[in-house]
Amino acid sequence: MKVGVLGARGRVGTAVCLAVGEQDDLELVAEVDAGDALEQLVESGAEAVVDFTHPDVVMENLRFCIEHGIHAVVGTTGFDDARWDQLRGWLAEAPGTGVLVAPNFSIGAVLMMRFAAEAAPYFESVEIVELHHPDKADAPSGTAARTAALVAAARRAAGSGPIPDATTSALEGARGAEVEGIRVHGLRIRGLVAHQEVILGGPGETLTIRHDSLDRVSFTPGVLLGLRRIREFPGLTVGLEPFLDLD
Amino acid sequence: MKVGVLGARGRVGTAVCLAVGEQDDLELVAEVDAGDALEQLVESGAEAVVDFTHPDVVMENLRFCIEHGIHAVVGTTGFDDARWDQLRGWLAEAPGTGVLVAPNFSIGAVLMMRFAAEAAPYFESVEIVELHHPDKADAPSGTAARTAALVAAARRAAGSGPIPDATTSALEGARGAEVEGIRVHGLRIRGLVAHQEVILGGPGETLTIRHDSLDRVSFTPGVLLGLRRIREFPGLTVGLEPFLDLD
Amino acid sequence: MKVGVLGARGRVGTAVCLAVGEQDDLELVAEVDAGDALEQLVESGAEAVVDFTHPDVVMENLRFCIEHGIHAVVGTTGFDDARWDQLRGWLAEAPGTGVLVAPNFSIGAVLMMRFAAEAAPYFESVEIVELHHPDKADAPSGTAARTAALVAAARRAAGSGPIPDATTSALEGARGAEVEGIRVHGLRIRGLVAHQEVILGGPGETLTIRHDSLDRVSFTPGVLLGLRRIREFPGLTVGLEPFLDLD
Amino acid sequence: MKVGVLGARGRVGTAVCLAVGEQDDLELVAEVDAGDALEQLVESGAEAVVDFTHPDVVMENLRFCIEHGIHAVVGTTGFDDARWDQLRGWLAEAPGTGVLVAPNFSIGAVLMMRFAAEAAPYFESVEIVELHHPDKADAPSGTAARTAALVAAARRAAGSGPIPDATTSALEGARGAEVEGIRVHGLRIRGLVAHQEVILGGPGETLTIRHDSLDRVSFTPGVLLGLRRIREFPGLTVGLEPFLDLD
Repeated sequence: MKVGVLGARGRVGTAVCLAVGEQDDLELVAEVDAGDALEQLVESGAEAVVDFTHPDVVMENLRFCIEHGIHAVVGTTGFDDARWDQLRGWLAEAPGTGVLVAPNFSIGAVLMMRFAAEAAPYFESVEIVELHHPDKADAPSGTAARTAALVAAARRAAGSGPIPDATTSALEGARGAEVEGIRVHGLRIRGLVAHQEVILGGPGETLTIRHDSLDRVSFTPGVLLGLRRIREFPGLTVGLEPFLDLD
Repeated sequence: MKVGVLGARGRVGTAVCLAVGEQDDLELVAEVDAGDALEQLVESGAEAVVDFTHPDVVMENLRFCIEHGIHAVVGTTGFDDARWDQLRGWLAEAPGTGVLVAPNFSIGAVLMMRFAAEAAPYFESVEIVELHHPDKADAPSGTAARTAALVAAARRAAGSGPIPDATTSALEGARGAEVEGIRVHGLRIRGLVAHQEVILGGPGETLTIRHDSLDRVSFTPGVLLGLRRIREFPGLTVGLEPFLDLD
Repeated sequence: MKVGVLGARGRVGTAVCLAVGEQDDLELVAEVDAGDALEQLVESGAEAVVDFTHPDVVMENLRFCIEHGIHAVVGTTGFDDARWDQLRGWLAEAPGTGVLVAPNFSIGAVLMMRFAAEAAPYFESVEIVELHHPDKADAPSGTAARTAALVAAARRAAGSGPIPDATTSALEGARGAEVEGIRVHGLRIRGLVAHQEVILGGPGETLTIRHDSLDRVSFTPGVLLGLRRIREFPGLTVGLEPFLDLD
Repeated sequence: MKVGVLGARGRVGTAVCLAVGEQDDLELVAEVDAGDALEQLVESGAEAVVDFTHPDVVMENLRFCIEHGIHAVVGTTGFDDARWDQLRGWLAEAPGTGVLVAPNFSIGAVLMMRFAAEAAPYFESVEIVELHHPDKADAPSGTAARTAALVAAARRAAGSGPIPDATTSALEGARGAEVEGIRVHGLRIRGLVAHQEVILGGPGETLTIRHDSLDRVSFTPGVLLGLRRIREFPGLTVGLEPFLDLD
């Protein structure tokens, strides 16, 4: 498959170019960055692109790709309902073309969320601990909040009862934040990168699902998976999970 | 549902009686142990039994139950191909009756194995660490060996390549045992009960699935789940996994 | 050494009697409980006692022991400054007699606190996570609060700067409780017993000290250590740490 | 303090230059690499050097420094008894000058080893798990083998009994390698960097000391500590531990 990379000289784009170049079944045919003409993609015969660019330009990029029947694997952020509608509209007129937009290309993070939600109905208790470097501005992390929401939804769907907690006397903050009824704790420690643990417990046993992201290259296997399977997913796909064969 | 317990005065049976007695939707109607007549089950109107007895008597118990249309949830060991055939033969003539035989009723252990196998094709590396009290006679544990076999099968089915390992100089045993190509490490530490960790890794990230069994009551939620759903599973079911709604 | 146990029929006392009885170098000579005469201790020749009784009776027990030159290893709670003064007064008149009062006889917990405090000055960041069963009423745990105080004191003594934290946007409670400037997070999960993790971090590395208490027998090695070394510690000792040869 | 760096253009040396340059109390006055004259150190008034060079040149570097009364903090390898003797001989004639040679400048690793050895006599069981990326050639790691030796020595000094292990049936390698009687397990997982866990256990409790090295900058705090305290340690010091105020 011939692949073009948009944002090819950015930090992530550079890593994507490198990773695509190392694969036997993928060929890097176009490296496009700000100021370069999108026509390069057509001229080079790109069948799919990877877009890690900027919210300001991603819609223009995608319109061009969809018009030319080029699949897209997108890690750029800034999508909202208006943009989803726009994308779906464009894709309706390009029936064989696929666009995958994912907030997180780390397969480990996607599986952690999936497994946590699947397991949640079978345990009385569940809490989330996320651990990051101390330069992070928000707490809890977006991934932790998203995990909590998925876990809470799975418990609601299964009719799970309230999570037991006999705490009657607590220092403020000792029991963490509450996201849709799920307790979430955020640690900020120098030396860490990005880590999360979901701990589920029932009588006499606990199940812990932990994801450690130690290096930013962790998104490459997810991007490569997206490229390899994008043809099987015409239309818009949000999130990497459908590309994983979890049944 | 009216429930009878076979092996009711054994350690596990006692715990099962207690747990069943605490449920609103289950009624404990018969506690049978060695020397007691199985007819008690019929007289008390038991719709299902739990059997934690002994390989010597379990087949007799099950024949009686199946003949009387009583479902059975079985944690007794010692089944082999001949016994499975026998059970299937009996059940063929009792079409509405279900028998669940599970080597492990811990939902956490079942989910750990399931998630490890599901995740395995998406990571280059996977190893298993099991940790138990030092009075255990075998290493690795049966659960670790079974997890390794499931992980290896999932990798084979996905066409995964060999697990990377550049070790050229090692002390004997330093890299653990190999079970179907998967490295397994067994620790024996005073104070521990039964614990297992499956560590999967790819570029820049790891996913760890850990099960801690801290108390033998960990089998009760699985037994209760078995009772509540046994009617939906006529015939023979081996292993608790089908009773969990994992799709 | 001849040992008497006060509170011998309580849960802890029973375990102490059992443990003392199993040692070659200790002899269980008196099992005293409510209603029994303390004179038993003298008659049986007890050289030391273990007291896990009640705040209402412990002072009376200790007065008797000190008067009769019997050493005491005490796990009973409820001491305050007035009681410490009283004890020191009695002991001043019994110069060879030792009394050890410890809030925690778990050697693992004592070492965790000690190591956390020793390491704290060498790392920019430190946070504490404590994990307990959900029937616990207070958060954070007493051990976590004590660890935080010790860590904070060690950092102050070393002139450590503030712990880095760039959080500007947080859900309430997401960053835990603050105990003397140290962040403490409390989890309540069914299936857990009592666990604590101290995570310290500097550029590119973290050091984690974790204590898992899985069974209440974890106090016995500390009690036995107290008995074996009490003769070397005449007067009042508060806390088990001096009995550990940490230099 | 005026600091020179030897091997200043190597990977580690570059990081050291950067770190020294960021400190208020240290001044980077000389960056020396292969081909540069050592006289630069004298001309620039360097009071101490950091040497991360090569076994072939380190002795020459140290002879020069000691002759000129310049302290040295050394991470270069390749020392043997003959070299230690040589160093001690030179230092005997330069009484105020200090040389610190350390195999590991990670404070976390040094503390992990220290704490493991201190705790070892108080627990029945101890095992070591080291986890590294799969491109590592040897197993177990040097740090794990060194930890095992320290733990074994501490147990011998305390007269500890044998570690309990009832294993009678084991797959080859399942119980790890044995280093001076201590079981050591090596994992090789893509995505990991360098990690080690020492697990100690007694009745009902475990104590785990874990070090995670996530980035090579983890040596810089140890090097800076070495520089700041080298004046207090005239003569030869091997290993960073004495520079840590552990009492």
